[in-house]
Amino acid sequence: MKISVLQTLEPDLLDKLATTTNAEVVNFANKTPDVQTLAESEIILGWHPAVVEALNSSHQIKWLQVWSAGVDYLPLDLLAQEQVFLTTASGANSFNIAQQVLGYLLMHVRHLDFSLRKQLQSKWELPQGQAELTERTIAFIGTGNIAQDTVKLLTPFNMNIIGVNSSGHEVAGFKQCYATSEITEAVKEADFVVSSLPLTTKTKHLVNKTVFAAMKPTALYVAVGRGQTTNQIDLIDALKHGELVATSLDVFEEEPLPSDNKLWSMENVVITPHSAGQSNFYNIRVLDSFLANFADYQANGAPSAHVVNYQNEY
Amino acid sequence: MKISVLQTLEPDLLDKLATTTNAEVVNFANKTPDVQTLAESEIILGWHPAVVEALNSSHQIKWLQVWSAGVDYLPLDLLAQEQVFLTTASGANSFNIAQQVLGYLLMHVRHLDFSLRKQLQSKWELPQGQAELTERTIAFIGTGNIAQDTVKLLTPFNMNIIGVNSSGHEVAGFKQCYATSEITEAVKEADFVVSSLPLTTKTKHLVNKTVFAAMKPTALYVAVGRGQTTNQIDLIDALKHGELVATSLDVFEEEPLPSDNKLWSMENVVITPHSAGQSNFYNIRVLDSFLANFADYQANGAPSAHVVNYQNEY
Repeated sequence: MKISVLQTLEPDLLDKLATTTNAEVVNFANKTPDVQTLAESEIILGWHPAVVEALNSSHQIKWLQVWSAGVDYLPLDLLAQEQVFLTTASGANSFNIAQQVLGYLLMHVRHLDFSLRKQLQSKWELPQGQAELTERTIAFIGTGNIAQDTVKLLTPFNMNIIGVNSSGHEVAGFKQCYATSEITEAVKEADFVVSSLPLTTKTKHLVNKTVFAAMKPTALYVAVGRGQTTNQIDLIDALKHGELVATSLDVFEEEPLPSDNKLWSMENVVITPHSAGQSNFYNIRVLDSFLANFADYQANGAPSAHVVNYQNEY
Repeated sequence: MKISVLQTLEPDLLDKLATTTNAEVVNFANKTPDVQTLAESEIILGWHPAVVEALNSSHQIKWLQVWSAGVDYLPLDLLAQEQVFLTTASGANSFNIAQQVLGYLLMHVRHLDFSLRKQLQSKWELPQGQAELTERTIAFIGTGNIAQDTVKLLTPFNMNIIGVNSSGHEVAGFKQCYATSEITEAVKEADFVVSSLPLTTKTKHLVNKTVFAAMKPTALYVAVGRGQTTNQIDLIDALKHGELVATSLDVFEEEPLPSDNKLWSMENVVITPHSAGQSNFYNIRVLDSFLANFADYQANGAPSAHVVNYQNEY
């Protein structure tokens, strides 16, 4: 079996991959991959546009393991047509994204962003209205890995935790879950609203002016996941009109966020450059997830975890 | 029984105080207190220099409940001589200080301060070396309420938690505790060092160049508690020489931190203006602590929790 690696991996991880799979591992990291070799590979780790060429030729590709949680940038129709298993890194970055989300929440209630802004002016100014996460209400739009890992981190704060997902199905750790159609009901009592939606045809602009209008004027809106699930124009309007008090954003409709975008200069906005998914644990977690799936693949012919359902688009 | 209130309290809290204690409550909040009335009070809530005058006159003061955790600003010798019980708010602000400490830690590992600095220049720049709290080592200098509450918040991160206290006695939640004399041993493996020491004759400048020299060059130093427990000149030198990588400070040797202090403009420094102790839960927590003590005081003649031992100075 041939495995092509398009993702840059540390040498010890490449060794682990080769040893555990017993496959011929071809490392194309930081190189333009050879289409013929890709076409001869049973499994591909990582992504490069050359994979499209390989898929459109005579090929043996059975499984693509990508290094991202989202798959909106991939040729899903082609992958589905070619019956390629597609597994994502969605479980692998959720714990660091959860830590970043908790960082945003604590910065907000402890006014740490306010203090840093003052610091850059050498100003000692006690922030007003400092609060806590204790006993407050948080609504997660999207109740997947990121939300579930964040919920674990929130355990010591005794919060009221509600969720929104496609059907309103129950999820462990959430007091109540609402269906997407009830999203305004879900957010209206929340002090914090955290969106971690994947981008699909159903989630595009799901968080829009109707949702912002339903929020408490004291609410914080946090967005990780994918930028186009938030209507950014509506968000800017809602912030200006006091429909919510602040926002912390890691993802944007256009990335990098254009330098003339109004969000950059708004005082109640915290911007991070799509950095939540990065962590020193990332490669090892994705590889371990792949290797666990590889055991299933050898035993049963298919990976079992983090497999994209092409009909759901995630 | 007369109780004088020098601390500003919400009307519902004043009602709760009067109802629960059945005392005559005199509210001097935002007023200059009358020394005679203070002298006739059995209990005083809050602090004002006029209390010194009352203590130096013929008085009935038995108990002073202050609204701070530290007591270094109080006339401890006079209070000891007059056999006044002194109870602090040390338990009441530890949970919000813990939240602020966790905020500093997450800002650091997720590079949120870096991103906010870039944001203020409208710059999209992916931070390098983003990490997690997961499985890392944290050393707490001081293992009191603040450290213990922080440890509770760190539970989901599976960290290696060590402590430093006067005698090296064990504390629940800490894997190992060192005595103050072994402080360099305690910090040398730590990725994060968090000082929450009270200021006493023994803790002044306890964290100094010897301690910084023992830290890992990748370590973050966090200081809450009292500023004079850190030798600030040594800290600035250590940061300049790379003996540690960054610091987050809520307390300083001189407060407000003078506008010409070098710390303001250093890029690896986060400054908050002694704001960690403030919270919307603060008054209710101090009052509830006082009322629990009041039951003991009525039953046994003495409060039982958060009572200052004048020999220890905390």
